[in-house]
Amino acid sequence: MKLNAKFIDVDTGEITALMHDSDAAGLGVREKDRVRIVHEGSGVVAIVTTSDTFVKRGEIGLLGQAFKFVGPEEGETIDVFAASRPESVECIKRKMDGLELSKDEIYTLVRDIASRSLSNIELAAYVTSLQINGMNIRETADLTMAMVETGETIKFDKGPVYDFHSIGGCPGNKITLLVVPIMAAAGCLIPKTSSRAISSAAGTSDIVEVFANVDLDSRTLKQITESVGGVMAWGGSLNLAPADDVIIKAEYPLGIDPHPQLLASVMSKKKAVGADYLLIDIPMGDGTKVPTMEGAKQYAKDFIELGEKLGIKVECAITYGGQPVGRAIGPALEAREAISILEGAKTPNSVIEKTITLSGMLFDMGNGRGGEEKAREMLESGKALAKFREIVAAQGGEADIKADDIKVGAHTYEILAKRSGYINKIKNKDFVKIARAAGSPNDKGAGLVFNKKVGNKVDSGEVLFTIYADNEAKLADAKALAQKLEPMLIEGMVLAKVPSFGRVTF
Amino acid sequence: MKLNAKFIDVDTGEITALMHDSDAAGLGVREKDRVRIVHEGSGVVAIVTTSDTFVKRGEIGLLGQAFKFVGPEEGETIDVFAASRPESVECIKRKMDGLELSKDEIYTLVRDIASRSLSNIELAAYVTSLQINGMNIRETADLTMAMVETGETIKFDKGPVYDFHSIGGCPGNKITLLVVPIMAAAGCLIPKTSSRAISSAAGTSDIVEVFANVDLDSRTLKQITESVGGVMAWGGSLNLAPADDVIIKAEYPLGIDPHPQLLASVMSKKKAVGADYLLIDIPMGDGTKVPTMEGAKQYAKDFIELGEKLGIKVECAITYGGQPVGRAIGPALEAREAISILEGAKTPNSVIEKTITLSGMLFDMGNGRGGEEKAREMLESGKALAKFREIVAAQGGEADIKADDIKVGAHTYEILAKRSGYINKIKNKDFVKIARAAGSPNDKGAGLVFNKKVGNKVDSGEVLFTIYADNEAKLADAKALAQKLEPMLIEGMVLAKVPSFGRVTF
Repeated sequence: MKLNAKFIDVDTGEITALMHDSDAAGLGVREKDRVRIVHEGSGVVAIVTTSDTFVKRGEIGLLGQAFKFVGPEEGETIDVFAASRPESVECIKRKMDGLELSKDEIYTLVRDIASRSLSNIELAAYVTSLQINGMNIRETADLTMAMVETGETIKFDKGPVYDFHSIGGCPGNKITLLVVPIMAAAGCLIPKTSSRAISSAAGTSDIVEVFANVDLDSRTLKQITESVGGVMAWGGSLNLAPADDVIIKAEYPLGIDPHPQLLASVMSKKKAVGADYLLIDIPMGDGTKVPTMEGAKQYAKDFIELGEKLGIKVECAITYGGQPVGRAIGPALEAREAISILEGAKTPNSVIEKTITLSGMLFDMGNGRGGEEKAREMLESGKALAKFREIVAAQGGEADIKADDIKVGAHTYEILAKRSGYINKIKNKDFVKIARAAGSPNDKGAGLVFNKKVGNKVDSGEVLFTIYADNEAKLADAKALAQKLEPMLIEGMVLAKVPSFGRVTF
Repeated sequence: MKLNAKFIDVDTGEITALMHDSDAAGLGVREKDRVRIVHEGSGVVAIVTTSDTFVKRGEIGLLGQAFKFVGPEEGETIDVFAASRPESVECIKRKMDGLELSKDEIYTLVRDIASRSLSNIELAAYVTSLQINGMNIRETADLTMAMVETGETIKFDKGPVYDFHSIGGCPGNKITLLVVPIMAAAGCLIPKTSSRAISSAAGTSDIVEVFANVDLDSRTLKQITESVGGVMAWGGSLNLAPADDVIIKAEYPLGIDPHPQLLASVMSKKKAVGADYLLIDIPMGDGTKVPTMEGAKQYAKDFIELGEKLGIKVECAITYGGQPVGRAIGPALEAREAISILEGAKTPNSVIEKTITLSGMLFDMGNGRGGEEKAREMLESGKALAKFREIVAAQGGEADIKADDIKVGAHTYEILAKRSGYINKIKNKDFVKIARAAGSPNDKGAGLVFNKKVGNKVDSGEVLFTIYADNEAKLADAKALAQKLEPMLIEGMVLAKVPSFGRVTF
């Protein structure tokens, strides 16, 4: 069928062709079917939307992306053919039926995902099927490799390559800013890529962006890593495992993160940079992604087994995630805290201890032993700070960066204790909400700083935590939310009295 | 946040707001999040799409539907607030986790579906979860009632109300055109609504539309039914159980029809017209929706059990669907065949026999016994023909309609037998493809007529079937497809020779 192209200036995220109802009927296609649209030899498959008002009979509307691929002039005639739905829809249905997918099926699926050939409906069916029916380790390894091979990969001229990843879920976990310079100072190659926050208060890239450029291309990433030893880049600009970004767009609105997809998402990005040794931080506890030790061990087992299949040596650290790590949450506040530790601060101890232990584990993976001592030496001698500044300078930041230079939110509000007692619980998810209400992660200075943490004694009227914001309106929002949520529990030391008879009273 | 409205002339099927990346970030929303947009007191919740090219900072693009609900002038300022995702997303996640949904949860879900508050991704997650995890009969009954109550219902002033439904999957099944006038002629009230073809060659509404108007509103449907006794309307124009139409849009691209959704889809439309007695035709056999007797019995059991919960007396007929019913496939050809039987034709026997048996069963449900005799009497006396003409006239067709008046495709091609033998198999799905290639159901005259059916003896060179089309090009397409598919198997009476030693030869 020959139709006249009409450019429609909107991008639906899908490659979309808008046809008049009667033209669609004439071609035998319905809403959500596919058509191949061809102009002067170049063609693309688009998903059909029909209308009897927005386009006239004889016209075909090409939305954003569809136009780019075919590129006719407005009003030019293009050829339109009915096309069948992508083969990978059958693979999705097999997973719906609870079947194991072959390597070929998984590659077909991932190629279609990476090339954006699947509709939102098909992608959602994929992630839902995966959430319910899962994948075994063989399928997960094939999924990982298919995601690697449909994206860019980086090969370093020297090695071995060390890498580190936290699965997230625990606020304030800024230790990447410490692990990378410590490892690089110890002579290891560590090309660390990170994400931005999706639902958290600050992703590592949001924090690093406070003082350096994180938007690096792969050539720059390779050059900095090889010359300085370490880098802290945003993964999003590198086109590593691009299928992952497409899949996340279907997972996010559903609030799900299917286990095999989470594994493949992490491991594909590590495989794409050629990691030899990989340490994975699994924060465990209330209000994290992994509330129980049993769940954490399952994650660790799967990561290690998957690493074996992919040729990456993996170790995992199950860490305490039941309250935020350190005292600061939010991009600038976390940056300031991390840099102050590099400058020699002796608190917060939770950040320092976790950093030393994890850096030590990672160092030992390639060197056998002595990791913790090495990590402590790098930190205490100032060599990690020097290396950090080298990395920052290489990424376009100030070479003499200091913690005190970091600009934090100008508007603050202190939340006070209403009673005396001991801090019994700090609710991770509530504090993420408060930090986001204050403006994190987009307002770099927004977030909060804890004056008290779990186990601390507190007197009525003492400051529990301080909210920071870049403007008054968001400070007010965050303050109202903090007052509503009561995100910290204060208890007496005696939690329950159990008399010799009668009921337990709390 | 205050933004300037920009009208974008395209309907994505979702209520969509297109925001500039930095405005979205400022509001703390991402792609696929929700915003509430308000103008002069009226508001609507829209799904966010972001862009940094199609709208400028400070602008918000309202796509098709979104504009309609809020209705500002181009460039006017509207208020935009972050909104949370609909509650029913949590219900979908519970079904993903394999949990039973409460009545409240199901009603919440169906209300959000019917009001088009769910995105395509959320709808796809719903149908996929249902396909995998199913629903019990209690949930299915709640689903059905929620679908009824979110749509229009029709209450007849007299009764009881008889109804009939075929779950489909067997081509040529035009018996609704016979059952309705027979039942009405026998004094029963039968307000039959039907669908159009989705993937078949002709839905009942496509056939009836050849000679009458099927696009009736509920007032007209009620009036015709009460005065004439029967009606044959298209369900799509009646707004019965509108959630179903929304759900089908997510099922169709995936090629799935989850069992509980199929049950609820059928039963909600029957409940909405107040059916008291309902007969369900379950065509069973190769190439239908239900290939095995075991599967057919399960369907029957579920329909009957669901009917009990809904207060509808249900019986089921498991019918032979291993080859097409009758000799004609395609809207006009099926209409002609059905009317010729009303006029007294004694063939095809398969259509007449099925009609009499099923009409008889349905009559007996309300009257105890004598149904088959009654149905035969209505047909053979010409009373069914007279009633049929009354119904046609009431629906705006010719009151003296005759089979010979029906215009069928002017272009025909006969497919001949390449060998002699017996027809061993007629492949339903292949013949649907051939009929659709010829133009069915949009070209009313397109389709095919069988000269031979399963069990018939055929000599080489005899006509097997004739393809009809409204134009030469589609005839050629259908002919090429028929020659490629070999949709009829011809065998000798001896299917295999088994010698006393050696291999079996076929």
